[in-house]
Amino acid sequence: MAWERKLMRTVRVRNRQQVGTLARLLTAISAAGGSVGGIRLLSETSASVIRDITIYADSPQSIEQVLQAIENNPGTRVLEVRDEVLELHQKGKIAIRSRYQIDSLATLRRVYTPGVAEVCLMIAEDPALARHYTITSHLIAIVTDGSAVLGLGDIGPLGAMPVMEGKAMLMETLVGLSGVPILLNTQDVDEIVATIVHIAPTFAAIQLEDISAPRCFEIERRLQEQLDKPVMHDDQHGTAVVTTAALMVAAREAGRDLKQARIGQIGLGAAGNATARMLMAYTQNPVLGADLDPQALARHEANGGQAATLEDIMRTCDIVVATTGAPGLIKPEMVRPGQIILALSNPNPEITPEAALAAGAAFAADGKSVNNVLGFPGIFRGLVDADAPRVTPEMLLAAAEAIAANTPPGELVPDPLNREVHQAVARAVAQTAFRQGLAREDFVSYTED
Amino acid sequence: MAWERKLMRTVRVRNRQQVGTLARLLTAISAAGGSVGGIRLLSETSASVIRDITIYADSPQSIEQVLQAIENNPGTRVLEVRDEVLELHQKGKIAIRSRYQIDSLATLRRVYTPGVAEVCLMIAEDPALARHYTITSHLIAIVTDGSAVLGLGDIGPLGAMPVMEGKAMLMETLVGLSGVPILLNTQDVDEIVATIVHIAPTFAAIQLEDISAPRCFEIERRLQEQLDKPVMHDDQHGTAVVTTAALMVAAREAGRDLKQARIGQIGLGAAGNATARMLMAYTQNPVLGADLDPQALARHEANGGQAATLEDIMRTCDIVVATTGAPGLIKPEMVRPGQIILALSNPNPEITPEAALAAGAAFAADGKSVNNVLGFPGIFRGLVDADAPRVTPEMLLAAAEAIAANTPPGELVPDPLNREVHQAVARAVAQTAFRQGLAREDFVSYTED
Repeated sequence: MAWERKLMRTVRVRNRQQVGTLARLLTAISAAGGSVGGIRLLSETSASVIRDITIYADSPQSIEQVLQAIENNPGTRVLEVRDEVLELHQKGKIAIRSRYQIDSLATLRRVYTPGVAEVCLMIAEDPALARHYTITSHLIAIVTDGSAVLGLGDIGPLGAMPVMEGKAMLMETLVGLSGVPILLNTQDVDEIVATIVHIAPTFAAIQLEDISAPRCFEIERRLQEQLDKPVMHDDQHGTAVVTTAALMVAAREAGRDLKQARIGQIGLGAAGNATARMLMAYTQNPVLGADLDPQALARHEANGGQAATLEDIMRTCDIVVATTGAPGLIKPEMVRPGQIILALSNPNPEITPEAALAAGAAFAADGKSVNNVLGFPGIFRGLVDADAPRVTPEMLLAAAEAIAANTPPGELVPDPLNREVHQAVARAVAQTAFRQGLAREDFVSYTED
Repeated sequence: MAWERKLMRTVRVRNRQQVGTLARLLTAISAAGGSVGGIRLLSETSASVIRDITIYADSPQSIEQVLQAIENNPGTRVLEVRDEVLELHQKGKIAIRSRYQIDSLATLRRVYTPGVAEVCLMIAEDPALARHYTITSHLIAIVTDGSAVLGLGDIGPLGAMPVMEGKAMLMETLVGLSGVPILLNTQDVDEIVATIVHIAPTFAAIQLEDISAPRCFEIERRLQEQLDKPVMHDDQHGTAVVTTAALMVAAREAGRDLKQARIGQIGLGAAGNATARMLMAYTQNPVLGADLDPQALARHEANGGQAATLEDIMRTCDIVVATTGAPGLIKPEMVRPGQIILALSNPNPEITPEAALAAGAAFAADGKSVNNVLGFPGIFRGLVDADAPRVTPEMLLAAAEAIAANTPPGELVPDPLNREVHQAVARAVAQTAFRQGLAREDFVSYTED
């Protein structure tokens, strides 16, 4: 998952009205190790200018140093320091809402007793009607045990909740689905599988999140075997979809044919393993895979891949994807001229795009822009619209192709807040389900809520 | 649970503009076995009047007869028949919504990666902060296995969903909590307990719904033992609270002292057992209990009650509550003059209020107005506001007293859509938690969302 371990603060400053004060202030922030985000002008007089400046830094100590530098800047006075991230998280970011008002006893009698009984009986007689007369057709469980949250590791389920709520916000904002975070207080594979199976009637699909490898593979496989609805571990397949889309775009930009290229995947954890599988499905060629864990290498070979070393891959491959979590792993002297390199580990990549390009790479990018948010909303919307019983590699490839097709020239990926991209992904997934005979719903709508 | 097994339709009719046409139509509807709800005037000309008339009946056959009677009424033409209940249930009655817009990449970076990581780490270091920075502090699980839904019995979890969504709507509308329906595909006690324990970190409290007796007793008890948060089976305690409140009001109206009265409970299932326990806690006197099931009688005696027969209770008690599901069980000749009788079985009571009053009862009511909706929203709001680790009999009694205190003279219960009543219940529960030393949150607010 692409993210950066950065802290944000919004600092309200009053600067003396004098040429160069703001420029000096920004220089001081950079010199203290901070980055500047948005700058908003709030008010201006003949004597002073008040602005909100958003600053980023990597640690609480670094934030302190930056704030100190701002206070020490001649002509600048700090009026207020706000933590807008925390403010936005107050009491959570999502809520359950009624879709209409209960404004009279007449409405109460329709949505609750006695009116509701007729709907209950209809569904009891024909459970397929639940899709039409309850929320279940667009309710997605977003399930985590908190064992592999962002790059933070095993921080437990409550610590993962802000991420799960963020995913639910994105589901609603981008494709109109209702995502419900479900936090598990167990990391036992049997218990996780049993729990999700037992609550499954509630949901149209199950999105697994931030569950560590190798447990994530078994949990996903067993749930897919037991449930007649889509189950997808986003850290595997969402990442693979967006990475594959980015590679399609990078190959296009560099004038290469992905299907003829020799591809290497460095790091075969949840994301790397799924990415290698997707690339092999797309190219019909084996991908070279490297990992320090023999179990991960064996899994890669069982998937049809070839085991290799880091050095092999760097020396022989046209395209290299790295998802190791090891900053600086790829040295400039390893880069083969003309290579396409996606070094996706966050916050610090295996090799910076600048270093890779300087060493002769034809195309290089890091993980800042390759984010799951481009994948999961549209994938789940498409699955749910088609009422598909499961997600297939073909559907995921169609999603990657839709993302690549919607990427503007000169960009690696599209704008994640562009809803048309997510609708295109949903349509591609649903149409693939239909082609595969897996669509149980004929009427597929992309406009309704 | 109080409800009536009735179907509703809204019929749009054009009546000839002539004195008496509407009156004749209403008479015809009654004669055909229907009841009339709201009548809405839509348009009127010199020749005709168009109205929407909401009709109720007990069965599909009865609906057909009523519609036929409307069509046959001279001067009336049926323009349209709508099933507004089904319309309101289309795609479900609730949704997950973002509490604010993600309208820019800047906001995306605050609510999702990278900004969210700081909040995750804070909570990982101090899980108590999840209460402030996630939705968990006001998220309530509304859990059912579909084994005892309304008066419909074991219709399965999907059939129960419209009721669960209705409860979630009421939670939001009346007290601003977020209720999440959770449907279980198991009716095994061990599996239900394990599943709820495993997903419990997600929620501030657990509301059990429509789970059949005697399984409901064990499930609730084991969950209360294992979880450090409130667990309440609404069909037991919600019903007991509202019934006790109604009895307090009935005693007040009839000039009796509930604490001095001899009380009998006929029917010791989920609702009856809990009602008897609450009345014993309130009066400090044993309640006479009757049931055909020896196990239910033994449970009642273990709770401190006295086993009795239906006849004993009717002959000797000042106050009788019946929750048997057996219509007409109480014959008029059994009624002791001056008795207070709440015959709560739905849709048809053990004895109608009219028959009971004619036989000499001082006060009589049936289950139409004694509905859980008066109890559970405020009870859960109070528990959550106080951050109480469990619900106690004292809190439930305080809730009943708050409902009784807010009942206008001449009524048995307050208007269920009056939010002040629910706020009063929440305040009573939270204050009792505080008095009992069970409030983990000092600052209790009743206005925030």
